[in-house]
Amino acid sequence: MTTIHDLTTPALIVDADLLERNLGTMAAALPGTRLRPHVKAHKCTALAKRQAAHGHHTFCCATVREMVGMAAAGLGSDLLLANETLDARRLAPLEARVTVAVDSEATIAAAAAAGGAVREVLIDVNVGLPRCGCDPADAGRLADLARQHGLGVRGVMGYEGHAVGMDDRAVRTQLCESAMELLLAAHALTGGDLISAGGTGTYDMNTWANEIQAGSYALMDTAYGKLRLPFVQALWVWSTIISLSPAYAVADCGLKSLGMDHGNPTVVGGAVWFCSDEHTTFAPDRPARVGDRIRVTPGHIDPTIAYHERMHVVSGEQVLETWPVDLRGW
Amino acid sequence: MTTIHDLTTPALIVDADLLERNLGTMAAALPGTRLRPHVKAHKCTALAKRQAAHGHHTFCCATVREMVGMAAAGLGSDLLLANETLDARRLAPLEARVTVAVDSEATIAAAAAAGGAVREVLIDVNVGLPRCGCDPADAGRLADLARQHGLGVRGVMGYEGHAVGMDDRAVRTQLCESAMELLLAAHALTGGDLISAGGTGTYDMNTWANEIQAGSYALMDTAYGKLRLPFVQALWVWSTIISLSPAYAVADCGLKSLGMDHGNPTVVGGAVWFCSDEHTTFAPDRPARVGDRIRVTPGHIDPTIAYHERMHVVSGEQVLETWPVDLRGW
Repeated sequence: MTTIHDLTTPALIVDADLLERNLGTMAAALPGTRLRPHVKAHKCTALAKRQAAHGHHTFCCATVREMVGMAAAGLGSDLLLANETLDARRLAPLEARVTVAVDSEATIAAAAAAGGAVREVLIDVNVGLPRCGCDPADAGRLADLARQHGLGVRGVMGYEGHAVGMDDRAVRTQLCESAMELLLAAHALTGGDLISAGGTGTYDMNTWANEIQAGSYALMDTAYGKLRLPFVQALWVWSTIISLSPAYAVADCGLKSLGMDHGNPTVVGGAVWFCSDEHTTFAPDRPARVGDRIRVTPGHIDPTIAYHERMHVVSGEQVLETWPVDLRGW
Repeated sequence: MTTIHDLTTPALIVDADLLERNLGTMAAALPGTRLRPHVKAHKCTALAKRQAAHGHHTFCCATVREMVGMAAAGLGSDLLLANETLDARRLAPLEARVTVAVDSEATIAAAAAAGGAVREVLIDVNVGLPRCGCDPADAGRLADLARQHGLGVRGVMGYEGHAVGMDDRAVRTQLCESAMELLLAAHALTGGDLISAGGTGTYDMNTWANEIQAGSYALMDTAYGKLRLPFVQALWVWSTIISLSPAYAVADCGLKSLGMDHGNPTVVGGAVWFCSDEHTTFAPDRPARVGDRIRVTPGHIDPTIAYHERMHVVSGEQVLETWPVDLRGW
């Protein structure tokens, strides 16, 4: 039997029970198609299959590679590329129901020119986050244009990314509501069955959308931790202390195994000083030894996972399964 | 013929001429074994072969995976794992001359217990950076211990990482000299032929070490750019504008294709607002169109490369070669 002590470090470890708890909590709140799990958070078809086992069969992707991988894994019954692409032709060989977000004439033309790879689109609407999405007032024109190109218009999507991370629930709710007013106004212009929005931070307050694109809830994240959501952190970087001096210890994880855009990781049992390419220097709370293994909590989970080839699903010290992070790249 | 316009984005692009210029400049300054190129910077055996073509046949690695990959690529004539490991057994099948850094009884024991995989070590000495390395005064005892375990002691290494990034050359020189005094004192206690130290920032001032462990010089880095070194940036992330609004554009590279520990990337022809998982929102200097391709300069190159499966070597718009980033992972 493999234990966490046998693993080559640094390694991603996932607590099996906590993952299941998160998946079950979300499936109870947003059953079936009310949730469209976003696979960008974990990039792992084995984890997506666990989400499917909880009743979700519609999925959301951020990259063409994720779409291709999900279809190849037999999870293609309803795949949404919730992102713009000029490269829709690469979706051609998929055995899947493929829907793509579009927000411009150019992205509609790319979808239409993809040789039948894309038959349906969502009009992506800017609801306040300065990123993708058209002006809400332009949604009807783009929907008409898509239909003229022979594409089915399934509705709208609009991500309230400026709201999902707000600590204050009242502020979060108010921003979410304002964003969804824009999305509903756009939907009135486009028609279609889907109003797709949301994220882990607004999963229980966004009652305007009829499907929620949440991904982080499965493994959670430090930044979301302060929102008092009913989901718990379930992923860490397992690391070995490889060097020790009187004042500090050095673990074998660093900038190439940790997403750093939210700042330094934290260490259970120590205070982090800094990270280098393959090292984290920290002051341990108690006496440590070279060879000790520690749990490191990354500042941001999504870009952390994207550095790793696999994640190990553990129960206590036992490794139950090892899942490839098979949706990396583009 | 493949051009950069055919590439799936985001993609790493390397300017062939600038890379060659950097390699040539360094080989002229530190010929042959005076340089021990550090492959952690690029994690690419094809690029290491270019360094070998410039006369360097001793290499430096930060991970066991890098050691294994370099040996498999036929570049194992003198490989140094310039890092501590408890997992030296994984070096067992290598057809290579393997030297490993040690800084404690535990890492010496691991090297000695590796079934002959490790026959030689360097004593890693702390010369001021709070990371790996023993107290200089302890170097002799560790060298003796290694010899008692049947390991050959090739000398010392000590990385003046607290000096290499200092803008002011006088400060850099002074810190480097103080660090090397510690290393030479340790060397007097250990013996051995090698005094291995340095990095791109101290390559021309560290005259105390007899080999320099530089890696960044090949592709360079934004942070090193301000040191007025004779090396130039030769790597960018090639990206596509996938969405546009009156005030900003959105490119298809983000937190999962850019090392973020040095902050936001910069965009040639625009001002970056923020990055998301797969997006960079920026204000373009001139009118842009959806589908335009742009060069994005990452804040930190090493952790950027570690996200990518390959790098494309280009001359102007022509893609000359595509090199796997084959030394990723651990």
